Amino acid sequence: MRNILVIGSGKSASYLIKYLLDKSETENLHITVGDLNVVNASKLTNNHKSATAITLDVFNKKSREDAVKAADIVISMLPARFHIEVAKDCITYNKNMITASYVSDEMQALDAEAKKKGLVFMNEIGVDPGIDHMSAMQVIDRIEAEGGKLILFESFTGGLVAPESDNNLWNYKFTWNPRNVVLAGQGSAAKFLQEGTYKYIPYNRLFRRTEFLEVDGFGRFEAYANRDSLKYQDIYGLDNVKTLYRGTIRRVGFSRAWNVFAALGLTDDSYTIDESEHMSYRDFVNSFLPYSPTDSVEIKFRHALKIDQDDVVWDKFEELDIFSPTKMVTLEKATPAQILQKILLDSWTLDPTDKDMIVMYHKFGYELNGKKHQIDATMVTLGEDQTYTAMAKTVGLPVAMAAMAILNKKITTPGVLRPINKEVYLPLLEELEDYGIVFKEKKVPYLGYNPLNV
Amino acid sequence: MRNILVIGSGKSASYLIKYLLDKSETENLHITVGDLNVVNASKLTNNHKSATAITLDVFNKKSREDAVKAADIVISMLPARFHIEVAKDCITYNKNMITASYVSDEMQALDAEAKKKGLVFMNEIGVDPGIDHMSAMQVIDRIEAEGGKLILFESFTGGLVAPESDNNLWNYKFTWNPRNVVLAGQGSAAKFLQEGTYKYIPYNRLFRRTEFLEVDGFGRFEAYANRDSLKYQDIYGLDNVKTLYRGTIRRVGFSRAWNVFAALGLTDDSYTIDESEHMSYRDFVNSFLPYSPTDSVEIKFRHALKIDQDDVVWDKFEELDIFSPTKMVTLEKATPAQILQKILLDSWTLDPTDKDMIVMYHKFGYELNGKKHQIDATMVTLGEDQTYTAMAKTVGLPVAMAAMAILNKKITTPGVLRPINKEVYLPLLEELEDYGIVFKEKKVPYLGYNPLNV
Repeated sequence: MRNILVIGSGKSASYLIKYLLDKSETENLHITVGDLNVVNASKLTNNHKSATAITLDVFNKKSREDAVKAADIVISMLPARFHIEVAKDCITYNKNMITASYVSDEMQALDAEAKKKGLVFMNEIGVDPGIDHMSAMQVIDRIEAEGGKLILFESFTGGLVAPESDNNLWNYKFTWNPRNVVLAGQGSAAKFLQEGTYKYIPYNRLFRRTEFLEVDGFGRFEAYANRDSLKYQDIYGLDNVKTLYRGTIRRVGFSRAWNVFAALGLTDDSYTIDESEHMSYRDFVNSFLPYSPTDSVEIKFRHALKIDQDDVVWDKFEELDIFSPTKMVTLEKATPAQILQKILLDSWTLDPTDKDMIVMYHKFGYELNGKKHQIDATMVTLGEDQTYTAMAKTVGLPVAMAAMAILNKKITTPGVLRPINKEVYLPLLEELEDYGIVFKEKKVPYLGYNPLNV
Repeated sequence: MRNILVIGSGKSASYLIKYLLDKSETENLHITVGDLNVVNASKLTNNHKSATAITLDVFNKKSREDAVKAADIVISMLPARFHIEVAKDCITYNKNMITASYVSDEMQALDAEAKKKGLVFMNEIGVDPGIDHMSAMQVIDRIEAEGGKLILFESFTGGLVAPESDNNLWNYKFTWNPRNVVLAGQGSAAKFLQEGTYKYIPYNRLFRRTEFLEVDGFGRFEAYANRDSLKYQDIYGLDNVKTLYRGTIRRVGFSRAWNVFAALGLTDDSYTIDESEHMSYRDFVNSFLPYSPTDSVEIKFRHALKIDQDDVVWDKFEELDIFSPTKMVTLEKATPAQILQKILLDSWTLDPTDKDMIVMYHKFGYELNGKKHQIDATMVTLGEDQTYTAMAKTVGLPVAMAAMAILNKKITTPGVLRPINKEVYLPLLEELEDYGIVFKEKKVPYLGYNPLNV
């Protein structure tokens, strides 16, 4: 019997646990799911004979160590900042470990010890980061093996609502952490590389510099720049690329409307609004507009943001009911971002029958035999329901598959890793196809940003 | 002989030291000017028989204590963060102290001890803060003594270039710390009170929500909101005001043009630009605009900021030569704000014969006998040359006068103080008039922001 410890039974754990339980008989597995709230863990183990739900507080050293000691491999699905204590125990007790989170500096610092002990610490193996790494590296390695030289890499991912549930004017609902959506893009400027030039976009222009993407069968999307495009240059070994850009996918028109919130200051999380608990939505919006004894909040809003009366963007704000004088904020000492999140949750919460969708789009530009070429690769995954979401599927399945591959000694290279090597991505991408997570590639004319070569 | 210790001989110390030296004979004074660089101190003491220039490092305990011990009163003209060690010595050795800086939490914490020992620690007694406090409280106290009730207080200050030296399209030159000008308004939203409603303006709209001010004999100005308007409510005892607003004065048109820098991201100080040392001004501006193999930086700039070809704002940017392909940034690993500052210094540095100007404008709205009234008070001070600037005069003279008043036991109330009481502001404002620092008051119709009372 091999014991797998899964710590955390949040949204992203459903598919992961289902996958492992489905294999428990043939693979001789026992799965222990530990959560601060054992009821959450029990929902996912669902009285399965090969599973146990336990109460596990990662800040309780004893219970954490006992659980780690009893396991053959440890999967942490906790928020990223909680991995490190578990990781240190895994070093101490010689356990392999898997997370879907970005490699933190603390995690990276364990690399030498993990290598010395021959332990695999696989990270960034969810969807983004995760499937993006694997699918990109598969094409990059292939192009380079054929003698091609990468000159352009662009990669976009979005968590969206499935077309059948897409019934609001923003073509958007919260399918993941709403707070991250409200705060997206804040901080330092987005930075990327375009035809050999570093480019910077400050927050207040981020949502006005989108680009369009077409996905066969799903229509048109748009993407705004992520803050971190350049860190992938080293990780992917893209020393010669002239263009390197990563972005977040939304349906067309979302960003232009969202920019209005950013421009007004409604996404700010750095200070609290006075007497927010007594405000209506209308009062909240009005507090960012000049005082007038006569002019309506609506006309001040339109004037400040230069929105024509027949502009389609206007209906998006009315749909959210942000001008309501009767809907109350109720939150005490709330930041603008917290209040906006509350307003958006009224409209953007998934209905019980709603389904989500993950969209990924890569562009690979390369030179081969003196000519320029481009491959576009796209992937769309739809959710089944609100437990077995596309997000849970694309995050959880690669984690679960990596756990089996490590347990079965198919992945053996030790260290603090990302899934960028063939040993990892080849078997996983192949198995993901069995679950409908498939990249469609097509050759397209290479245009880049200087098609006439002037 | 009374010994006055002045620590710091920067820009704002010229008038201060001149004032004290002019009184040294009649008032029996000896002035010691301590600076890290004794050459700077010597320039201001200028071999005067009643003055000594010394090397003083405030982080050297012994030299700091020796200097404090030998003094009857201590004036710290250092940057605000360096006052506290001096202040603690003043407590230890029973010395009164004066600064022109905002009361820090650390300084405030000395209040009880200062009171217990009967020491006067006078702060915020420069121009802004300083003359603004005194001139505002004089009118506020008078209105209240007459039975009036304050309902509106707005206060604006600006450090500008004198009309005779005002010869660029921005009507602006650096007359004080350029870095503070470039970073002005960043951080949390500006917050103020307008007709009983809290209003918030985020940075990216700050320079587009200005208001106009007319000063007799000097024409039209504009002002954008300071971040901190509300903290004056308690200090001034303005419990009933419905409108409370503090702002920074510029010449008309400055803010609309400056907003372009803020919108493009050129004022950001939170990250560094790659390879900044090899960039031309043109490259720098271009790094915030989309790549194009053909379109000029100028047309991309105009398009991104929606600047018509005949808009007067355009000439302001050309005047700064920000599109120059030959002028080089040269700064290594510089933030956008640092690079912008360098570009602006090319154009906005005072010529040797240039003079500066301080403009202050207060509006007091009040109810008396059932009617609404308004008093506007304005003050303009012009500099004499680049040593005896308006800034140095308006900062240094109140500090020097407060030192004499404390030394001569005319100001005796102990504690960590601001100049908001009659004991302080009455004699100082009167004496400031002798030096040409005069407020002109006029009654104007009260309009507020709801003139029709709807």
